[in-house]
Amino acid sequence: MGGDHGPPAVVGGVRDYVRRHGAQNLKFLLHGDEAAIQAEIARLHLDPALIEVRHTDKVVAMDEKPAQAMRRGKGSSLWNAIDSVKQGEAGAVVSAGNTGALMAISKLILRMSAEALERPAIVAGWPTLKGITAVLDVGANVESDARQLIQFAIMGEAYHAAVNGVEKPVIGVLNVGSEDMKGHEEVREAHRILRSGELDLPYYGFVEGDDIAKGTVDVIVTDGFTGNIALKTAEGTARFISTLLKEALTSSVQSKIGALIALPALKVMRRRIDPNAINGGPLLGLNGIVVKSHGGADASGFGAAIRIAVDLARSDYLEKVGVSLGRLGEVIEAVEAAQTAAPSTEEATK
Amino acid sequence: MGGDHGPPAVVGGVRDYVRRHGAQNLKFLLHGDEAAIQAEIARLHLDPALIEVRHTDKVVAMDEKPAQAMRRGKGSSLWNAIDSVKQGEAGAVVSAGNTGALMAISKLILRMSAEALERPAIVAGWPTLKGITAVLDVGANVESDARQLIQFAIMGEAYHAAVNGVEKPVIGVLNVGSEDMKGHEEVREAHRILRSGELDLPYYGFVEGDDIAKGTVDVIVTDGFTGNIALKTAEGTARFISTLLKEALTSSVQSKIGALIALPALKVMRRRIDPNAINGGPLLGLNGIVVKSHGGADASGFGAAIRIAVDLARSDYLEKVGVSLGRLGEVIEAVEAAQTAAPSTEEATK
Repeated sequence: MGGDHGPPAVVGGVRDYVRRHGAQNLKFLLHGDEAAIQAEIARLHLDPALIEVRHTDKVVAMDEKPAQAMRRGKGSSLWNAIDSVKQGEAGAVVSAGNTGALMAISKLILRMSAEALERPAIVAGWPTLKGITAVLDVGANVESDARQLIQFAIMGEAYHAAVNGVEKPVIGVLNVGSEDMKGHEEVREAHRILRSGELDLPYYGFVEGDDIAKGTVDVIVTDGFTGNIALKTAEGTARFISTLLKEALTSSVQSKIGALIALPALKVMRRRIDPNAINGGPLLGLNGIVVKSHGGADASGFGAAIRIAVDLARSDYLEKVGVSLGRLGEVIEAVEAAQTAAPSTEEATK
Repeated sequence: MGGDHGPPAVVGGVRDYVRRHGAQNLKFLLHGDEAAIQAEIARLHLDPALIEVRHTDKVVAMDEKPAQAMRRGKGSSLWNAIDSVKQGEAGAVVSAGNTGALMAISKLILRMSAEALERPAIVAGWPTLKGITAVLDVGANVESDARQLIQFAIMGEAYHAAVNGVEKPVIGVLNVGSEDMKGHEEVREAHRILRSGELDLPYYGFVEGDDIAKGTVDVIVTDGFTGNIALKTAEGTARFISTLLKEALTSSVQSKIGALIALPALKVMRRRIDPNAINGGPLLGLNGIVVKSHGGADASGFGAAIRIAVDLARSDYLEKVGVSLGRLGEVIEAVEAAQTAAPSTEEATK
């Protein structure tokens, strides 16, 4: 029921997904207003065997505060959808609804698997010159210590392998420079631990803001404050340049003619940065798979978010992350012990 | 002597500045290799009365570490240029040299005026849909508490008024959302103090990453870690889209013809985001005016940096900032006292 478009985008997203990837023995469990959902299923001529509808009248409003949604949300479509993952009925949940409520209720029902995380981490699939880079956290963990940053690295690596099909994703830590002594203590400690190799994650080192769109690495780890601002700054920059481009190409009859001739090529370019094509941000760190779709996503955008949920649910993502997170405490201790034993090496890099 | 181009960009920058803005009784004091500088002056037919050359053989290399440059830099062109501000011989210094060295030696010679700052704050002039927004710190203060953020606000406001001619610049604090309870304690405390009105700075509230390019406010305040990453992310995004656009417009004969026809309009657009046109990042928080030019700036870029230095030096920037910084301690105490007296108001916003 969530998002700007409700059932048309969600049911349309199911159709879009099945058209692109086939039904693959999947079944879709849709929670919400049965009449509205069935009307969409009929309108789009979808195979009814593909979908099961669970009726509820109750919805979480898009502007409801997370705390309020947690208290009053029981029995809502959002709540029931998450609960169906908890009950083992569904392999994953996808929602275009209220992000704060999705996060809070997911945490309440599914619980965090990475106990150091305050809130689930949100991954952005960032279009780059080389393909897609996974950047996390772009969400809600405003202050992240070294342990959390490494949890992001573990989850981001497993996510990228499962969803973007990269076998040994290379990880970078976002910083203001590439030298060991740059940045604050949290990133430097995460850097030391990842660099130690103890976690068996391919590690590149520090990356800077302009490395994101270059595609320097596959997975970029950062605290949720910086990640959120970087993501929105990039979106703002893209919109700014698009606006200038549009203004330029409509500024005179001559430029309009030029734009018209170049239009097919410009359309190809547009597709590469189409937000719908890269829609779907999983909330990582939960005991279960939860994918957030942009509220404004259309059917093809919602279909893209379903694709991420299916790929994650069909992969060994949860087990793999579970094992690595389980080893984390011991790894951090080992690296710290080695450092205390040989502080001169560390000093030498300053 | 600094930057990728040395004297040609610097002497060329002087010519560019004078051509655009007139000599205005200015005199330019150039420090470095006299023969190389004089050769450029002759080549460009510049009025010799406009320029005084102070010879030195010594230069700070572009890759020298700041600590090294501080120890060994005495008598170098960089050192002497900064020292001429300290001695009252020059009203401002402009350098395209080693940023770390410029920062360290400026701090050593001129000293910080804002004692809470560890290092000078760097301002970026960010092109937006409405003109230019000043964003600071994009440099070296990786962890900034509320007091430092407010110092950035004070300096950014005075800077924007002096350099971009905006009479009452409106300030925003960069955050992950616009509500009072969003973000970490540092931004929330800065928000409370700015909102109190005690500092007589026009304050908008929190802004998000996509507000930068929208031009929502005139001055955006953030810690140097986030600011640096936001700036480089925006640069990377702009370069990414330019690359896609170039690829699109050269992908076929048809699109090449279209691009050729639209070329004049595309050139106008390009000029709006030309890094040379917005070159020049002042290091704020020092007892003196220091402007950093991009190392890669050409003569017109260096001329833009000179413009910023002249405007700052001719304004009441230093006095204005001095007065506001002087009042800061008392203002923070007053706001904190009011808060302690009425904690319920604060609680109510959570």
